[in-house]
Amino acid sequence: MTDHAHFMNKALEQAAQALFLSSPNPRVGCVLVDADGSVIGQGFTQQAGGPHAEVMALRDAAARGNDVHGATAYVTLEPCSHHGRTGPCCDALIAAGIGKVVGSLTDPNPQVAGQGFARLRAAGVQVEVGPGAAASRELNIGFFSRMVRGTPWVRMKAASSLDGVTALHNGRSQWITSPEARADGHAWRARACTVLTGIGTVLQDNPRLNVREVETPRQPRVAVVDSQLETPPDAHVLKAPSGCLIYTCSTNQSRIEQLQAQGATVIHMPNAQGKVNLAAMLRDLAARGTNELHVEAGFKLNGSLIREGLVDEFLLYLAPKLLGTAGMGIANFGPLDELSQALALQWQGVQPIGPDLRVIARVQGRADF
Amino acid sequence: MTDHAHFMNKALEQAAQALFLSSPNPRVGCVLVDADGSVIGQGFTQQAGGPHAEVMALRDAAARGNDVHGATAYVTLEPCSHHGRTGPCCDALIAAGIGKVVGSLTDPNPQVAGQGFARLRAAGVQVEVGPGAAASRELNIGFFSRMVRGTPWVRMKAASSLDGVTALHNGRSQWITSPEARADGHAWRARACTVLTGIGTVLQDNPRLNVREVETPRQPRVAVVDSQLETPPDAHVLKAPSGCLIYTCSTNQSRIEQLQAQGATVIHMPNAQGKVNLAAMLRDLAARGTNELHVEAGFKLNGSLIREGLVDEFLLYLAPKLLGTAGMGIANFGPLDELSQALALQWQGVQPIGPDLRVIARVQGRADF
Repeated sequence: MTDHAHFMNKALEQAAQALFLSSPNPRVGCVLVDADGSVIGQGFTQQAGGPHAEVMALRDAAARGNDVHGATAYVTLEPCSHHGRTGPCCDALIAAGIGKVVGSLTDPNPQVAGQGFARLRAAGVQVEVGPGAAASRELNIGFFSRMVRGTPWVRMKAASSLDGVTALHNGRSQWITSPEARADGHAWRARACTVLTGIGTVLQDNPRLNVREVETPRQPRVAVVDSQLETPPDAHVLKAPSGCLIYTCSTNQSRIEQLQAQGATVIHMPNAQGKVNLAAMLRDLAARGTNELHVEAGFKLNGSLIREGLVDEFLLYLAPKLLGTAGMGIANFGPLDELSQALALQWQGVQPIGPDLRVIARVQGRADF
Repeated sequence: MTDHAHFMNKALEQAAQALFLSSPNPRVGCVLVDADGSVIGQGFTQQAGGPHAEVMALRDAAARGNDVHGATAYVTLEPCSHHGRTGPCCDALIAAGIGKVVGSLTDPNPQVAGQGFARLRAAGVQVEVGPGAAASRELNIGFFSRMVRGTPWVRMKAASSLDGVTALHNGRSQWITSPEARADGHAWRARACTVLTGIGTVLQDNPRLNVREVETPRQPRVAVVDSQLETPPDAHVLKAPSGCLIYTCSTNQSRIEQLQAQGATVIHMPNAQGKVNLAAMLRDLAARGTNELHVEAGFKLNGSLIREGLVDEFLLYLAPKLLGTAGMGIANFGPLDELSQALALQWQGVQPIGPDLRVIARVQGRADF
C-alpha cells in the first residue's frame, strides 16, 4: 500500500466515526502527517454546527503538542471555503502552516465546488486530489445525492421470509426477522437524516421509528405520508426527538392545528391525483437537510415509491423460513406482463445478521449521478 | 493440521471427484501413505459396478511401482465387506498387506455396518475411525438418507426474484435468473440420481431435465408425478438418457402401454385421495437407488411436497430484481395464520453465481438422521 492509500484509509476510518453524528453535513475525516510519516493529529466532523474534521485534527495536534507546520493533511473531502456555522476549513489549514493537502474528492456543495482547493493552492499549499474518492463518496452517498440531485438517497428497508412474504394474510408480521436484524435496522435508522413511513403503518403499528437498539448521538427526524391527516394526536411518531414532518393533501385546518399543537410540521404537497406528491416531497426533504432517507413503510407507500422510480436502494432482511401463499409482498407494484419490466437491482452486499440474511441491493444506475 | 487431518483431506478431495460419477454408490476417496508420510497411491469410487476407492488406490500404487506393505490407508467411508458388483474392499486391503486403516465413518449400509472394520481388525490391521466424518457424511448425505431413512435426500430447486416471484401472472418465467445460475443448476442435477418434476411442468415447458451445461459421465434418471397419465408420448422427459419413471394413479391400460412403448416405467402409486402417494414414491425412488432427489417442479408439486413434510433442502437462485405483485411464488402451501407455522430453515450456504445469489437452506432438523 502506498503512503497515500495508507493515510487516506486512516482518514476514512476517522470519517466513518461521523456516521451517526455529522448529518446533514458530510462524514469527513482528517489525518495530519509530518515529514517523518508520523500521524500528529486526527479528527472527524462533529454534529452540525460543531467543528469540521480539519479543525478537529488541528486541535488534536495542538493538544498533543505537535507542530503541524509543513505537515500533510489527508482529508476525505475538499476543505470547505465558505462561512457556514463554522469558519472555512481551508483558511484554518493555511493559517496553521499546513504544507500539503491530499483530498479525496471535490465537495459537490455549490458553495465549495473546488474553491477550497483553489484557495489552498493560491496560498501556496500543495494540493493533490483523488485518493479514497470512491470510498468517501460511498460513505456520503446521501450528501452527494442531496447536493447533486437535490433529493435524498432513498433506502427502503423491509423484512421478509426467504419466499418474499412480509406479512401473513391476516396482517401478522411481528416478528418475521430476528432481534439481531431489528438492531441492525436501527443502525441504518441512526445514519439516516429522516425516517419515512406511511399513514397505514402509523395507524396499524403506531411505531416510534426512533433509534433505540444502538447508541447514537442524534436521532433522525420522522416523516409521514398522510394524505388525509389521519395521524392520531397521540401517535408515537409525533414525539420523535428530532421532530415529525407530515406530508398531506388535506387542508382541514382543525386537523392541521391539532397536529401542529403536538409539534408536527404539516406540509401541504398534493399532486394532481389528490395524493401526496412524492417526488416533490423528496425535494422538500432534501431542502430540509435530508441526505439519507430511510423508508420503513408498508405495501402501499413502498409500491408508490417504486412505481414512481424514487427508490435508490433496498435494505432487505431475509429470514430463514418459508411463509407460503396469500401473504403480503414487499411492495404494491405490478402486475408485470414481461420479465423485462422487472425493477433491475445489483447486489451491494450480502451478509448474515444473527439468523437472518441482510441483502443490500441498489436499483441499477441509481448511484450514477 | 495433524497428519490424520491432512491425509484425510486428501482422501476427501479424491471422494469429491466421484460427485457426478459413483451414484448410487457413495462418493468415497482413498489415499495410501507409507511410513515416511509419502502418498503412494490414491483413488476414488468409479461408476456403479466399477472399482471402489480402495481398489483404485491400490491399483494406482501398483501402477506407480510403490510397495503398499505396511502402509496406512485413509478412506472416507468404511471399506465394504460384502460382495456387490465388486469384491469386498476390506479383503483387497488385507491381501495387499495394508498395516492400518483410518476411516471417516462406519458405512450405514446394513450389508456393511461395521463388518468391514471388524474384518480388518480380525486380520490384524489397525483401525481408527473418525477423521473427516462430518465432511464425508455431508458429501454422501443422499446415500446416508437412503440407507438410514429409506428415502432420498430431497433437494428442491427454484429460481425467483429477490421478492420471491418465480413466474409472472401470465406464466412467464424464462428467464428470471441468469445463464450462470442455470449452468450451476445443471451441476446439481448432475450429482442427483433422479430429477423429479410434475405433469404441469411437463405440459407447460416440456423440459428435458438432463445435464447439458456441465460435463458429466452419467445422466440422472427423470421421474414425473403424473396422476392422470397426461404425459404426451413425444414429451422430452421420455427420452431421458437414464430412463423415465412415471408415478400415477391412472390404470388406463392404453395410456400405460403407450408410455411404456416410449421406454417409460409406469408406477401405480395412488393415495386415498386419488393423488400420487408422494411419501411412498420417495420410498420407491430410494429402493430404485436414488440417493439425492433433485426436484425441479412447479407451484403445485412443490407445495404438496412441502405440505407433506418431504423436503430436506432448498436450492434457491435469487435474481437481483423485483417482480412485484400477482406473480407465482415458489410453492402452493399455506395460507398460514401464525408466523410460528412457518417452514423453519437454516442457511447452508449463500454465494453469488453470476449476477444471481444462490441460497442453500435446509429445513431445520431434516439432516438429523
